[in-house]
Amino acid sequence: MSELSQQELDQLSINTLRLLAVDQVEKANSGHPGAPLGCAPITYTLFHKFMKYSPTNSLWSDRDRFVLSNGHASALLYGTLHLAGFNLPLEELKQFRQWGSITPGHPESHETDGVEVTTGPLGQGFAEAVGLAIAEKHLGAQFNNDKFKIVDHYTYVLCGDGCLMEGISHEAASLAGTLQLGKLIVLYDDNLISLDGPTDLSYTEDVTKRFEAYDWQVQYVGDGNDLTELTKAIEAAKAEHTKPSLIRVRTVIGYGAPKAGTKSVHGEPLGKDGTKAAKEFFGFDPEKSFEIPEPALKNWREAVTKGEKAIADWHERFDAYKKEFPELAAQYERVSSEKLPEGWEKALPTFPVEKAVATRNAGQIVLNKLGEVLPELAGGAADLTSSTKTIFKDSGNFHLDAKGRNIFFGVREFGMMAAVNGMSAHGGVIPFGSTFFTFSDYCRSALRMGALQHSRSLYIFTHDSVGLGEDGPTHQPVEHLSSLRVIPELTDFRPADANETSAAWGAAIERGGPAWMALSRQDLPTLDLNKYKVFEGVKKGAYILDEYGKDVVLVSTGSELQLVMKAGEELKAAGINATVVSMPSFKIFEEQSPEYKESIFPKGVPVVSIEAAATMSWYKYVGRDGIAIGIDRFGASAPGPLVLEKLGITVANVVESAKKVVKK
Amino acid sequence: MSELSQQELDQLSINTLRLLAVDQVEKANSGHPGAPLGCAPITYTLFHKFMKYSPTNSLWSDRDRFVLSNGHASALLYGTLHLAGFNLPLEELKQFRQWGSITPGHPESHETDGVEVTTGPLGQGFAEAVGLAIAEKHLGAQFNNDKFKIVDHYTYVLCGDGCLMEGISHEAASLAGTLQLGKLIVLYDDNLISLDGPTDLSYTEDVTKRFEAYDWQVQYVGDGNDLTELTKAIEAAKAEHTKPSLIRVRTVIGYGAPKAGTKSVHGEPLGKDGTKAAKEFFGFDPEKSFEIPEPALKNWREAVTKGEKAIADWHERFDAYKKEFPELAAQYERVSSEKLPEGWEKALPTFPVEKAVATRNAGQIVLNKLGEVLPELAGGAADLTSSTKTIFKDSGNFHLDAKGRNIFFGVREFGMMAAVNGMSAHGGVIPFGSTFFTFSDYCRSALRMGALQHSRSLYIFTHDSVGLGEDGPTHQPVEHLSSLRVIPELTDFRPADANETSAAWGAAIERGGPAWMALSRQDLPTLDLNKYKVFEGVKKGAYILDEYGKDVVLVSTGSELQLVMKAGEELKAAGINATVVSMPSFKIFEEQSPEYKESIFPKGVPVVSIEAAATMSWYKYVGRDGIAIGIDRFGASAPGPLVLEKLGITVANVVESAKKVVKK
Repeated sequence: MSELSQQELDQLSINTLRLLAVDQVEKANSGHPGAPLGCAPITYTLFHKFMKYSPTNSLWSDRDRFVLSNGHASALLYGTLHLAGFNLPLEELKQFRQWGSITPGHPESHETDGVEVTTGPLGQGFAEAVGLAIAEKHLGAQFNNDKFKIVDHYTYVLCGDGCLMEGISHEAASLAGTLQLGKLIVLYDDNLISLDGPTDLSYTEDVTKRFEAYDWQVQYVGDGNDLTELTKAIEAAKAEHTKPSLIRVRTVIGYGAPKAGTKSVHGEPLGKDGTKAAKEFFGFDPEKSFEIPEPALKNWREAVTKGEKAIADWHERFDAYKKEFPELAAQYERVSSEKLPEGWEKALPTFPVEKAVATRNAGQIVLNKLGEVLPELAGGAADLTSSTKTIFKDSGNFHLDAKGRNIFFGVREFGMMAAVNGMSAHGGVIPFGSTFFTFSDYCRSALRMGALQHSRSLYIFTHDSVGLGEDGPTHQPVEHLSSLRVIPELTDFRPADANETSAAWGAAIERGGPAWMALSRQDLPTLDLNKYKVFEGVKKGAYILDEYGKDVVLVSTGSELQLVMKAGEELKAAGINATVVSMPSFKIFEEQSPEYKESIFPKGVPVVSIEAAATMSWYKYVGRDGIAIGIDRFGASAPGPLVLEKLGITVANVVESAKKVVKK
Repeated sequence: MSELSQQELDQLSINTLRLLAVDQVEKANSGHPGAPLGCAPITYTLFHKFMKYSPTNSLWSDRDRFVLSNGHASALLYGTLHLAGFNLPLEELKQFRQWGSITPGHPESHETDGVEVTTGPLGQGFAEAVGLAIAEKHLGAQFNNDKFKIVDHYTYVLCGDGCLMEGISHEAASLAGTLQLGKLIVLYDDNLISLDGPTDLSYTEDVTKRFEAYDWQVQYVGDGNDLTELTKAIEAAKAEHTKPSLIRVRTVIGYGAPKAGTKSVHGEPLGKDGTKAAKEFFGFDPEKSFEIPEPALKNWREAVTKGEKAIADWHERFDAYKKEFPELAAQYERVSSEKLPEGWEKALPTFPVEKAVATRNAGQIVLNKLGEVLPELAGGAADLTSSTKTIFKDSGNFHLDAKGRNIFFGVREFGMMAAVNGMSAHGGVIPFGSTFFTFSDYCRSALRMGALQHSRSLYIFTHDSVGLGEDGPTHQPVEHLSSLRVIPELTDFRPADANETSAAWGAAIERGGPAWMALSRQDLPTLDLNKYKVFEGVKKGAYILDEYGKDVVLVSTGSELQLVMKAGEELKAAGINATVVSMPSFKIFEEQSPEYKESIFPKGVPVVSIEAAATMSWYKYVGRDGIAIGIDRFGASAPGPLVLEKLGITVANVVESAKKVVKK
């Protein structure tokens, strides 16, 4: 091969990437070749010309981030990462979508080097990217100064029509505009084709105007294969420091394949003939698979040396910073490596037995105490700050000064929680979002995605039962406890009082994984720390409070714990000796040893549970012979205590049920 | 009181409504006075000057619809309905938000005369209204002709900032623009205040530009108290027949109260002093509550005679229509009254045992067969028509010709399912939406709202387990079966084969309530109708397929039913006599008699369940002594059969588990 011009080298590099994606899909006989063929010039331009990153140090904290929001184009991302020199061997590309590979159907950040966030469910990558950009801006404001820029990078996104049709893109984009995330740059694969056919079947909005309405900079590149135009647009986007940028790139889905420009090329392998035709179109040998011409590889791999240079520059800068600002530098190193400061848990407050406290109010106290020792805590609510009580009293507001740890997310639950996941993925912050428990339904998929990617996200929910009262069934959670407890790898907390709330916050921070918390609107009696080992207990998920005997186990969580405690006393007076158990976290309990679990729910001892919620999650412990008292219907609009009573959430009901099961 | 000018009468009528709302909230000591004080001129103008309806015949099919999307302003709606003469006595307003009243915290359509849809969770009313307008347009196209307009009404919406911040408003508005729902008119209470404070805390987008981008007509009324301007804007909106209309109305939240214009007046009673001040501001006696001056009542109640005249006109028109188009008229009468045609269930197809069929493909056949006898069936998918197979092959596309029953909802799951609920609320259609099962998370709250308001909605989900294979954990539902089964008043179906799919569709249509269905991507063996009473069985939720004996019950659903059937055979050969149960609907099973339930799960007989999903929902039947085989983790990206095998969804696992529990 004679010496290639730069233009020829660019094309060869792009076409190599294209066909690497085609071959992955073809070999797997599963996947999406359309977007990779159309968008390869975009990721090439980003990863080759613009992005600051080091493939051999992929976790460098000041790298630019790239998010593939249209996660079905995973073969494009894997191809890009392999070519750029990340720790993703070609062998793994050949195992695309196979058992045990690190190249799953959609990108998963905990599986694959260089994948920043888990994406696939449309629109969520976009919102996660908003979180990445929030974290960058927040950390920059905390750590940079006139002399040193320690945190200074861009967040790039590639998204498709589907992402922008999803409501979450509206929430995230509107929020990004308000928060002036000037270093967020979204490239929109505007290919006019979605799964059902031409986008005008269902999608005729003026996207440019829409994003201008959100106060974004919007540009249009008429030919996605024109690297000069692409480059100009990205340069202009980088130069705009206040507004986030959207670059509409008109591409051809499946470019180079026989069915280019149609929906047929979106989500199915090209097939033998199609693959052959595409390879011929790009001047590749149709007989070869996973072919990477040496000049292309060499060109792509410039990223390695460029990256090592960039990281060396940064370390030099950071060393100087460290000399001048040792405390800030130490803090930066600590938060970036996700280490907690020595003795942080001493900040967890305890509450005296004398005073009843709503767990949402206890939560506020805990959050503020923890905030003093954990500057990396940052977050807010979906326009319910005064109800969910998730505000740092001593900190400012992020939208006014990016140092501020209070983020007003607006009435955007889904966008908020996905952004929280993005903040977590960025590193350097422990993010949280909050809303009413019933609206966990609005953001449920973000909780799932946080669980899947092991986010360090905290999802705080208040008004956790029909006990909220008058707002009525539309606002009263009933099925939410069970329905969130069933999500894998997500830690649940429903603390019973102020002390369990403090312990739950502690456990959530210590575990470092994704967790949600359901807190009460109403005041709850406080557990006596002189009597009960609350902090140790919460760390085991379930623990014995009162042990009168082993006739029956009475178990509960949250606001209903007081009912089983009273029932335990009443039963004792009636000659039935109960074990009273608090079970603030099902997930943590399930992680305990079989012996510990047996000690809480001994074989043969009947169990009565009560919770102001649907009963489903209890039957594993209550079985067919116990009784699960709960609310397997919608709530009702009336004062909270009356609703609870009318729906059978009473001491009397526990006592009666215990007598029944013991009689058996 | 001397004779009032029209202007004075308007003001008195509006202020009466305002204070009626204030008094409801005050008496309940709970609720939201801010929006009613600001928006009373809007509902007055609509209900008094514009809307076509008959308070004494509130279900008249050709009435204009009104949706309070900011449902927390319920006191405004109840006040309006009472004053206009609906069957909502003043006594009920005095019982606002109390146990047993028909004036719950947020409007619930099945509770209160005149409430069209259930609202409260923000943005959903907006999207339901899009569904109302879709139904109107679809029925109009079906039944109207050049000579007769039988279906010809507007859908009005009042919404707030919160509704427009929610992502669902983007989905619904973008869809409404594409579908050219010219008779949808949204009045936006643009009061600059949300719960956390001034809206610019988190919401700075240019709403006018945004809605123009969706191809809406947008107008601005600078003073919500200016009835002339309001009237002009609504007239202009009505005159625009192609584009939906948004009217931004600048109001003052809590107008007339001491804290008007602040967040303090949003969600708390005004208090004694505030109420007194407001009454004085409006010239009412501060000592009186629930005061309705006679001239105001008389003025409001003109709606009754106007409505009776309107309905008489319509009936006259309909009678003439009936003479000329007797078949269409009969069909209109039938679908409007939600009656099914005689013998409709004969259209349900049956499938021969010889051929394995994916239940999504069976669903397509059933849908098309039912479509022939039920012209009221209409719906579509969220850009997944070719995957979920929910298309009428013999019908057109709604967006091209409103007669068409195929609606392309775009990648907008939440907006779609809320619109489906709205279509149901309109009446005259049986609507459905569909997407992948994992994306039920995106639209979960709409399913809940459908359940709460007893919608006639069908939510069709396909790709119902990790069996979908390579797309991986982001797209593989695991916890979704349990998490949807726990929603109250919502019927679940996971049919095991093509025949159960047909039976499930039949049961869903017959029940008429909200139901979801989880269908497989992969082919499943067909149950032999000569051997198994599938259609009767599905109607009972769970039924016995094979009964070898009572050593153990093996139970399953969907794609795993074949495993328990094979395990039953294998166990028999090993001398263990199992009862093999199919359980396509937990909800329907729970409705059966205790005797029937006992016949399926007899006391003392151990139970083994298997499902390629989280196990939570099974423990009620399996108990502490049985074994629930399932997938309590995320899935994995690999070919479906391999994933199922690796995760233990095998005949061998059922056999082994059965042996274990029988040994006990």
